Amino acid sequence: MSDSNRYERGLERGPANHVPLTPCDFMARAAAIYPARTAVVHGALRRDYAETYARCRRLAGALAARGVGIGDTVSILAPNVPAMLEAHFGVPMAGAVLNALNIRLDAASIAAMLAHAQSRVLIVDAGFARVAEDALAQLECRPHVVAIEDSAGVEGEGGFADESYEALLTAGTPDFDWPWPEDEWQAISLNYTSGTTGRPKGVVYHHRGAYLNALSNVLMNGFTRESVYLWTLPMFHCNGWTHTWAVTAAAGAHICLPRMEPAEVFRLIAEERVTHMAGAPVVLGMLINAPEVDKRQFEHVVEVATGGAAPPAPVIAAMEEMGFNVTHLYGLTEVYGPALVAAPQQDWPDLPLDDRAALMARQGVRHHAIQGALVADPETLAPVPADGVTTGEIMLRGNTVMKGYLDDTRATAEAFGGGWFHTGDLAVTHPDGYIQITDRAKDIIISGGENISSIEVENVLYGHEAVLEAAVVARPDERWGETPCAFVALKPDGPAASEEALIEHCRARMARFKVPRTIVFGDLPKTATGKIMKFELRERARGLSSDAPVGESAETA
Amino acid sequence: MSDSNRYERGLERGPANHVPLTPCDFMARAAAIYPARTAVVHGALRRDYAETYARCRRLAGALAARGVGIGDTVSILAPNVPAMLEAHFGVPMAGAVLNALNIRLDAASIAAMLAHAQSRVLIVDAGFARVAEDALAQLECRPHVVAIEDSAGVEGEGGFADESYEALLTAGTPDFDWPWPEDEWQAISLNYTSGTTGRPKGVVYHHRGAYLNALSNVLMNGFTRESVYLWTLPMFHCNGWTHTWAVTAAAGAHICLPRMEPAEVFRLIAEERVTHMAGAPVVLGMLINAPEVDKRQFEHVVEVATGGAAPPAPVIAAMEEMGFNVTHLYGLTEVYGPALVAAPQQDWPDLPLDDRAALMARQGVRHHAIQGALVADPETLAPVPADGVTTGEIMLRGNTVMKGYLDDTRATAEAFGGGWFHTGDLAVTHPDGYIQITDRAKDIIISGGENISSIEVENVLYGHEAVLEAAVVARPDERWGETPCAFVALKPDGPAASEEALIEHCRARMARFKVPRTIVFGDLPKTATGKIMKFELRERARGLSSDAPVGESAETA
Repeated sequence: MSDSNRYERGLERGPANHVPLTPCDFMARAAAIYPARTAVVHGALRRDYAETYARCRRLAGALAARGVGIGDTVSILAPNVPAMLEAHFGVPMAGAVLNALNIRLDAASIAAMLAHAQSRVLIVDAGFARVAEDALAQLECRPHVVAIEDSAGVEGEGGFADESYEALLTAGTPDFDWPWPEDEWQAISLNYTSGTTGRPKGVVYHHRGAYLNALSNVLMNGFTRESVYLWTLPMFHCNGWTHTWAVTAAAGAHICLPRMEPAEVFRLIAEERVTHMAGAPVVLGMLINAPEVDKRQFEHVVEVATGGAAPPAPVIAAMEEMGFNVTHLYGLTEVYGPALVAAPQQDWPDLPLDDRAALMARQGVRHHAIQGALVADPETLAPVPADGVTTGEIMLRGNTVMKGYLDDTRATAEAFGGGWFHTGDLAVTHPDGYIQITDRAKDIIISGGENISSIEVENVLYGHEAVLEAAVVARPDERWGETPCAFVALKPDGPAASEEALIEHCRARMARFKVPRTIVFGDLPKTATGKIMKFELRERARGLSSDAPVGESAETA
Repeated sequence: MSDSNRYERGLERGPANHVPLTPCDFMARAAAIYPARTAVVHGALRRDYAETYARCRRLAGALAARGVGIGDTVSILAPNVPAMLEAHFGVPMAGAVLNALNIRLDAASIAAMLAHAQSRVLIVDAGFARVAEDALAQLECRPHVVAIEDSAGVEGEGGFADESYEALLTAGTPDFDWPWPEDEWQAISLNYTSGTTGRPKGVVYHHRGAYLNALSNVLMNGFTRESVYLWTLPMFHCNGWTHTWAVTAAAGAHICLPRMEPAEVFRLIAEERVTHMAGAPVVLGMLINAPEVDKRQFEHVVEVATGGAAPPAPVIAAMEEMGFNVTHLYGLTEVYGPALVAAPQQDWPDLPLDDRAALMARQGVRHHAIQGALVADPETLAPVPADGVTTGEIMLRGNTVMKGYLDDTRATAEAFGGGWFHTGDLAVTHPDGYIQITDRAKDIIISGGENISSIEVENVLYGHEAVLEAAVVARPDERWGETPCAFVALKPDGPAASEEALIEHCRARMARFKVPRTIVFGDLPKTATGKIMKFELRERARGLSSDAPVGESAETA
């Protein structure tokens, strides 16, 4: 009936009305509009947006002058120092791909990543010269090595490098006219997963996703130009959950924190009037358990986003008492960091702490840039009923799902089976639509035909006043198939707790078949990113001599 | 050196990682996550997001069932009522294009637009039945006519329509599975310009631009889920500057206001705790000049975005005294409403009112979704120096520049000459990068070889306590070529003011050659959108008998 092409004819994309999305523009805009606002604080160093943008342009120009551009990888091995933030803009402004490496990795892992990434340039904080040198020694093709010589007081040796970072910057100009990406699908960064099993995979992000995730994070966290963001989260974690770009989009201030020291965190909160920070629950634990002498009073509320594990009720309570407001997020490297948020509802603040903590412990609902978040059968992709009971795998879809794994078509295709990203995390959907992880895919314990969520048992253990960390895995058992085996680290200065006491604590709070039959005390093994290495604990549990299970048959739920 | 295709190979777009942007998703997300939050308030009527989304889906389903889809136009002639908001989601959810018409237009104009748009459906608020009927009578091809029968107490006649809006909704289902747009470049809305000269042009917006402009507006206005947005701005103005979509993106509350009545505005601010509103300066003037009995005290600060003309210092002062915080925006229909904002700097709050007002009167800097804002020579596109003096034309570029003019390839090509959208507004760039309009393209008065900005003269006139509205145009003059001629409306209850008094007021505040030689008292003619019709005033000025100019020769600046 109508001419359906009218709304297309003569209305094509052109330079006036279609511009590839890129987070690099956030820095350009902040510098143009708020040149004198504080962009970066690093110890006694303060730089405004005009200067910071000029340094990013110098970096981009210098890289371009060295022939680094589209399709090239620039790796960086550094803690949260200004150069790390600058690299998040300067490297993509040169058209290249930023590969931020985990500073907690060993030389062999770093070497493997540099080789896989085919890095043209490696920027290294001098404090990490040794591991970098060891890694470089293992490479056939050595990248151009640049040393950041000032790292928060660590006066490292720059001698191993081909030049210093500051010298590199002088090769570029502060008004370098960086080329806008021609396509927003162009790669912007490469982040290696540090999964607890298997070899690391190179997750590729693109400009469009980085831009949209940053804006989505501005909305989720409420960043404004008045925001003061403390970098307790490593920028090498999913580009700092894209907060590198998001805080800049808002023209807020970045407060660098090269090392997680509670006293320094409290000092910066009080003196810089920090408004936002983020990090794993272990960071919250460090603040809570800091010596009283290190703690500082502050008048304002600090927003803390946490993820990686659900914050237990006592952690939430202790943080709130100190003046923090905690939000729980869920995500993975493959989705630019957080994809779900336990978005607080209007009535939550009035609930008793335990009820509120139970709601906050859920992984939550999608943020703006994620179009679909589903708990579904991984084969049929049929969603589970929203009953809070039926388990499926979390599936995500949207513009902030990775471009794919670098040079790994098979893994990419597997991850995207059926047009959804398969997270590998098992979860339920509650009647209110909030998703809650019941277990990481491999962390189910099946005992007497009953599924036991190791997370549920861990949460109960965390509720004991003596417990610092707890991990529960399956221990093979002749009679029951598997039984829950708990590995527990006690608080250094906390009360004592025996195996019997912890088991009694669990018995009072869960079905008997879920209660750990074994408790092993000691430090827990962790990956470089701080994840507890459950696969190693499973090995250890397998090695324990079989014991005759006590108690009666497994109960049915 | 490197394999530059590595970051593309096997990393193509797919359904898992690439989803067309659409603001329709904002409603779906708000309803999924905040189903019980208030979405719409209209008199005594309150609807939450679950119900509002269900109604949008009903609308989309009903339109689809009537064969309305991609490439079809659905027009709506309504004030700020719930159906108007629903149409902003329901119509594009059907794949169709929303054409919101200005309710202040005459039947002939409406008929011309309906014919040009080839509207398949016309949704009419019953309060506008007569003008709609008159318009429909002029059409060769009558669209399907739907009547909104409740319009804020106006119990209009629905008899002229083919069916009622509520009956239409029953033809759709609340769980209609609306088709996601296949391409974010797909048209979402059609907005006719109501320029002061020439025939109206149909400006086409697309899903990508609407999504990005909405997010940009969330950032610019600080919308959150706690926001309560009062609709003092007509939704038919650039889709309410995309606040229809932006407030929904934040899951804030929309407070409908079908008619601009100061008493009702103050009541809603106090009783609904309105946080945000927007509108032309005339709206601010109505609030300031409202009878004291209509005003209400409120404790909180209400953010008011204003555009179309710079708010004069006395208006800013009066608004602040009542509890409002004013932000000045600049935009056009072709750029989805506001494109520039007089973004406040850290030191502005401490400045004296007049200094602050002078800074706020500037059109400002680009928001996030605009990539380029330039004052340049319209022929060469060479930017003017940022000296606050050299005049050029404002040029805009970015993802929130229109798709183009419907069925008008020539006008589209002209508007986009050189890859920039030509606004037609003349301006300067200040040393701090803020753009300030010196005159609409045709509003320069040239007297004795000197350019006079009519805006500058108007601003001085607005500074007189007796002046309600002022417009200054060129009056032909044998000796000087042109002289400034002022048309002035005095405040109804204000002090008296003679021609001599106003001229004396101007003489004390500007170079003599800029002082109006003639002052004409009376109401000012306005377009349907409230713009003063300067072309008509220029006609009137031409008709005044020539008088011998007083005073000496024009000064040079």
